[in-house]
Formats: sequence, C-alpha cells, structure tokens
Amino acid sequence: MGYIKGLKCRECGREYPVEPIYVCEFCFGPLEVAYDYNSISKAVSRKKIEKREKNLWRYRELLPIDGEPQVGLDSGFTPLLRADNLAKALGVDELYIKDDTVVHPTLSFKDRVVSIALTKAKEFGFDTVACASTGNLAHSVSAHGARAGFKRFIFIPASLEASKIIASLVYEPNLVAVDGNYDDVNRLCSEIANKYRWAFVNINIRPFYAEGSKTLGFEIIEQLGWKAPDNVVVPCASGSLLTKVWKSFKEFRDIGVIRELDTKVFAAQATGCSPITTAIKQGVDVIRPVKPSTIAKSLAIGNPADGYYATQVIKETGGYGEDVSDQEIIEAMKLLARTEGVFAETAGGVTLATAKKLIEAGRIKRNEVTVICITGNGLKTQEALHGHTAVPYYIKPNLASFEEVMKTIK
Amino acid sequence: MGYIKGLKCRECGREYPVEPIYVCEFCFGPLEVAYDYNSISKAVSRKKIEKREKNLWRYRELLPIDGEPQVGLDSGFTPLLRADNLAKALGVDELYIKDDTVVHPTLSFKDRVVSIALTKAKEFGFDTVACASTGNLAHSVSAHGARAGFKRFIFIPASLEASKIIASLVYEPNLVAVDGNYDDVNRLCSEIANKYRWAFVNINIRPFYAEGSKTLGFEIIEQLGWKAPDNVVVPCASGSLLTKVWKSFKEFRDIGVIRELDTKVFAAQATGCSPITTAIKQGVDVIRPVKPSTIAKSLAIGNPADGYYATQVIKETGGYGEDVSDQEIIEAMKLLARTEGVFAETAGGVTLATAKKLIEAGRIKRNEVTVICITGNGLKTQEALHGHTAVPYYIKPNLASFEEVMKTIK
Repeated sequence: MGYIKGLKCRECGREYPVEPIYVCEFCFGPLEVAYDYNSISKAVSRKKIEKREKNLWRYRELLPIDGEPQVGLDSGFTPLLRADNLAKALGVDELYIKDDTVVHPTLSFKDRVVSIALTKAKEFGFDTVACASTGNLAHSVSAHGARAGFKRFIFIPASLEASKIIASLVYEPNLVAVDGNYDDVNRLCSEIANKYRWAFVNINIRPFYAEGSKTLGFEIIEQLGWKAPDNVVVPCASGSLLTKVWKSFKEFRDIGVIRELDTKVFAAQATGCSPITTAIKQGVDVIRPVKPSTIAKSLAIGNPADGYYATQVIKETGGYGEDVSDQEIIEAMKLLARTEGVFAETAGGVTLATAKKLIEAGRIKRNEVTVICITGNGLKTQEALHGHTAVPYYIKPNLASFEEVMKTIK
Repeated sequence: MGYIKGLKCRECGREYPVEPIYVCEFCFGPLEVAYDYNSISKAVSRKKIEKREKNLWRYRELLPIDGEPQVGLDSGFTPLLRADNLAKALGVDELYIKDDTVVHPTLSFKDRVVSIALTKAKEFGFDTVACASTGNLAHSVSAHGARAGFKRFIFIPASLEASKIIASLVYEPNLVAVDGNYDDVNRLCSEIANKYRWAFVNINIRPFYAEGSKTLGFEIIEQLGWKAPDNVVVPCASGSLLTKVWKSFKEFRDIGVIRELDTKVFAAQATGCSPITTAIKQGVDVIRPVKPSTIAKSLAIGNPADGYYATQVIKETGGYGEDVSDQEIIEAMKLLARTEGVFAETAGGVTLATAKKLIEAGRIKRNEVTVICITGNGLKTQEALHGHTAVPYYIKPNLASFEEVMKTIK
C-alpha cells in the first residue's frame, strides 16, 4: 500500500485520480503526484531507511507506487565521494561528488526515473514502454524494459552519437531515429502517445517517472549523515531533475527526517543550450526556447518542460545558474578524472565547469559544503574527447625504446 | 593489524617476508600471500561482515593489508542478479549473473584487484604505480591511482581499441603504447620493473593484487545467502581470477563462514586465445602459449601466468573448460542484454557463450545453481558490435512517417 493521494495540477491545484495522465484538462498545467505526508511521516524514520537494502527503493514511501517495487532493485544508492583533491583544485573546503556514473544497469541517473516509471507501468497494466530520449533514457528504458519483459519503442534524434545508438541497440528495442532534434522527437512522441496505448515514460507516465529523481536527493542527505548540503549544483535538460532534488530535500524536512534545510540550488547548462540559466541570469520567468548546439547532447533540450519551475527553485533557495562552453566542459571532464578518478559524460563536465565558475564568482562560498551531481558515465560520450586528450607515447617492445620516452618525462 | 603471515612459494613452499616481490629465488615459482587462518576464523563471522559497508573491504581480514583500507572504499559489492529470463532461454532452473559491469569507478573487476594493490603500494611507500594492461586494468590503475595521488605509468598494446585508449587518457596517466601484443608488453614491463622502483600492480605487487579477485567470490557466496553455488563460470585471461574465486570459496569454508562446498569451477575462453581451455579439454597440464586473435581483447593473454593453476582448479573441482568463437561472443552479448538488461564487454560474451555451451553439453546440469561472472562493461568494447546489431528505423518527424514503420513491425 502506497501513500499517494492522487495527481494534482501544479498550476491550478485541480486533483485527479492516479492514472497515466500528465496534463490538467482545465488549465493545461503539468500534473504532479500528491502524497499523504502525514501518514508518511509516521511510517518513515532514519532507522527504518537504514535497515533496508542499499537501492533507490529504500525511500519507497516517498515514491509513487502502490504495490511492491518491481524494477530497479539494484539501481541507485551510488557513491557520494568526498572530493578532497578536486576541492583543493577549486579552492574550497568541503566538496562532494554524487557519482551516478555507476548506476545499475546503464550508468546514468535515468536508471532511477525508469525504475519508478516501469514499476508504475506494470501497475497500470501496460505491455509496451516507450520514450523520447537524448541517449541515456534510451539506454535505461531499453535495459530495464528488457529485463522487466516489456515491448519497447525508443525514439531518438538521428544525430545522436553513434556510440549512444549502439548502446541502445544491444538490448534489441524498437529504436526509431527521428530526423530532427530532441524537441522534434518529443513533439512527435506526444502525438504517438495520443494514439497508442503505451507507457511513454516521459510523457503520459511523466508525473510518476519524474519522482524517481528525488532518490538522488534523498541519497545525498542520507550519505552526508542526514544533513542537507549548503549548495547543490544540478545539470539541467528539462529542468525536472533540479526541481525534484529540491523537492526531495523539502520532503525530508517536512516529514521530519532532517530538521534544518538551508540549501542553495544551482543550475548548470551548456552555453550552446542554456534557456534555463539564461532566464536565471536575466532575472526573468519566461524561458525562451533555443536551438541546441553543444557537445553535451544529454542536456540539449531547447524547450525545457520544467524550465520555469527550475527558475522558481533557484529564486526560492537563493541559488543561481551558469552556463559553460564546450571547451570548459571538456576541461572539467579531464579535471574530474585526474583529481578524483571519475570519468563523467559531457553533462558531468557541464556541472563541474559550472560549479567552478560559481565558486570563482563567489556565488558558492569556499567554506561551505557543496555537492556536485554527476549524472552519467563518460564512456557514453567518448567521442567528445577525441583530439582533446594527450596522446600515448608509442614505443617498440624493448627497454631502450622506453628509456627514450623517460628522457622526455620530467 | 592484518592477518598476513608472509609470502610463500606456490611451488616449493619456501617462505618470504611481506615485500614487493613475486618470484621464489630458489625455484622461480610464483609467491602467494599466506594468512593466519586460525586467527581469521576467530575474528570473522557472517554477522560481523554483514554490519560493514557494502564494498569489497567488508572481507578485509582475508585481504593482504596491514593497516586501514586506503583505496577503493566505493569499489565492489556489485549486484548478483537472479537471471530468470536468461535461465529460461538457456533451459536451466536457477541462474545468476555476478554483475561487475557497474564496479566503481571503472566498470570492471579490475577495480577490485587495483584497490588492494594500491592500498598495498601505499603501505610499501611507493609514489608511482604501473601496470601492463589489455585495457581494463589501464582504466582502473589510471583512475584509482589518480584519486590516491600516485604517479602512473600504464603500458598497453598499441593495437588496443581506440575507445579503451581514450578511456585511460582522460585520467592523464603516462600512457605507453607498445608495438606488440599483451605478452610483449608484459615482458617489457618485467624488465622495467627490475630497473625502476615502481609498484607494478601485476608484476612486483602481483601476490597482493591478485588476492583482490577473491572479493568476487566472497560476494557471490554472501549474496547467495551464505551458500556456494553448484557451478561457477569464470573467464580466463591469465587464469588468476579463476584460481582466486576458488580460493575465496575454500577460505570461507576453512574459516567456517560456510559449511558445505561442492562447487564445480568452469573456465571460459575465446577460441582465438584458448591456451587454458585447450589444456583442459586435452586433459594435459602443460599450457601451450598461443598468438591471440579474438575480439575479446581483455582476455587475449597467449601465455597465461596462472594457466597451470587454473587447470588444477578445474581438475580438483570436477569442472571443465570451453571456448567460443567471435560470432558466439557477440550473440551472447546480445542475449544477455535483451534478456537481463546487462551490457557486458566482449569478455562477458565469452563467459555467457561458454556457459551456454556447457549447459547444452550437459556439463552444467539444468537443475543446479549456476553463477556466471560478468567482469566488465560493454561500453568498453562497443566497437565489437559494429555491424552486428539491428539498425534503427529512420523516420521524418511526423506521425505518418512513423506509421509506415509500424506497418513493418509485427
């Protein structure tokens, strides 16, 4: 038995039953899951959570399912690394990397949202799952969906990196490459979702799916020893992750799992696709759509569904937003790898480069506790590094040849 | 305080102190770590282990360190998946995947051995670590070594897949590409190890390093509910992993953590590099070196250091060995992905294809409990799949174009 009261329009507050719907019929606002927090606060405690398996379902009372978890029993609870080398490089005292480069099974935070979406799809009785994706979601729906026994339709922009395409195809979904960018793919999928009775995880299942992102925030607080950080830096594509991380922090406070909450939330985008951070920097509420052009393809959503809500979180918490160039992204990927041994995808480069910028600008204070959310693995976007790393020393298989190299190394 | 008694020659039994040495001065046999099992059996219990953090150091009394763990505090304790879809496809009752595709930080079982090797290198006071690698070890030494603050020299065959090279370079080690195969690289590294005071994890640190593989076996037993499986299928490169998995099972029995042990151990190789399984199938003790030619480059060791010991484990346990073609490897990679949502590297394809063959031949019984060891992530060897997956459906961004595709899908 879950703790969902129903769905509720984020704009007009109108309530709906728990169904695979996502838009308010009256004001066209997005629907969100409403919980019975009173009951949850009685049912949940730190002790109870700590006794459970180390996966994302340890926070199950705050996730929108009615029965038992069915998908993603090995997903989540990724490391929170204390990043002392990186902290030193950036000149701050206490820095953490929330490391979703190793989420089971497909190495990005999308395995979190898909775990919830597919469990919910089972509860709703769907036999087919689908998604519009910039790559990571494609992998996760393909993989989780395979194991859970769903038929799968995956829609991607045809321009996606070849490696991200192969990494979907191996799971043998129906992969549909659309001649257009993510926003085109998304529009098409909305049409398809109207016609076919499929569980489109980020369309008609979106209210449930999006809740999965909260697990990233719950874990951060638990892994910090049941404390919220002073600052959290979150990459933005649709903006949903950022809003949900903040929601998770507030929920933990509201149900009494933590007492204090004074976190500033910061948004990270690539300059080549920065509708959200541009609005933040300009101090406006209107998100102006853009045509994406960045190596951070997993963040390349030009018309972000939750962009407005993301800007409101920034305002509410006193955070800020910044965007970074492709060159800064690559430099940050290498910085993270050489200091902390973590190989992040381009989106991770965005987040770290943004954090660096915010520290340098004094927006993030050097003596505060900061968490940087690294949401996917670098093996997914290796192409971005071609020509941007050092090259190997090439030698013959003998000691003399190696000694020649040693002369050149200081 | 650790439980190491010293090093001991595996051939003549001569004993040595705990030092960065690896060969017996008298008989040239390999040295192995000797423990004080009496004290360990008093110090370790299931309960004690269960209370610890879920990483590979939860078995620390059986690992060759003297002080506190220093590297790899987030490595290990990967999922053991009950693989019911795959079991059905293969016609067996109870099958598990030990899933090292998600080991922190570099997604292969090498993160286990390197965690131990680098902790030991710190205890010995080295400031530089090095390795000869077919790729996965390069990633792990590059990454773990970066975070731990070591200078790093990584030696690889120049023919390695481009993606495996980039995935090392991002951590900014000194990467040396040798014009030769792995065995050539290894020979050269032995020479270099004689000259420079470096911790070569798989040469002078090898006795300690190799012990890290036991954690894979410890985890299997714990995750099966403190029971050893009937069968375990292990991929072989040097043969070390297989011998250590068996050693871990025996240690758990010998110190009383489990009572019964009746496991058959099976070796998996690619036909293009099968010196160990060839010896097993021919029933001989002599490993005849080969020139590797297989897509499973992480297993391409033609002259395997522990090949002989691997064959002895097979004999002792009543197991067997098999080898599989490149085509079978690819088919198995896809089978694993579409049934269980796990994308394994080529070595994982070798192990699964071998298991399939052994089941079909009746060597692995259909009503027994079998564990298949998947030791690395498929994103590392994506090139192997080029031209071997289905292709996407390409469409225009409109419903009509998609409907054309739907007509072709049954």
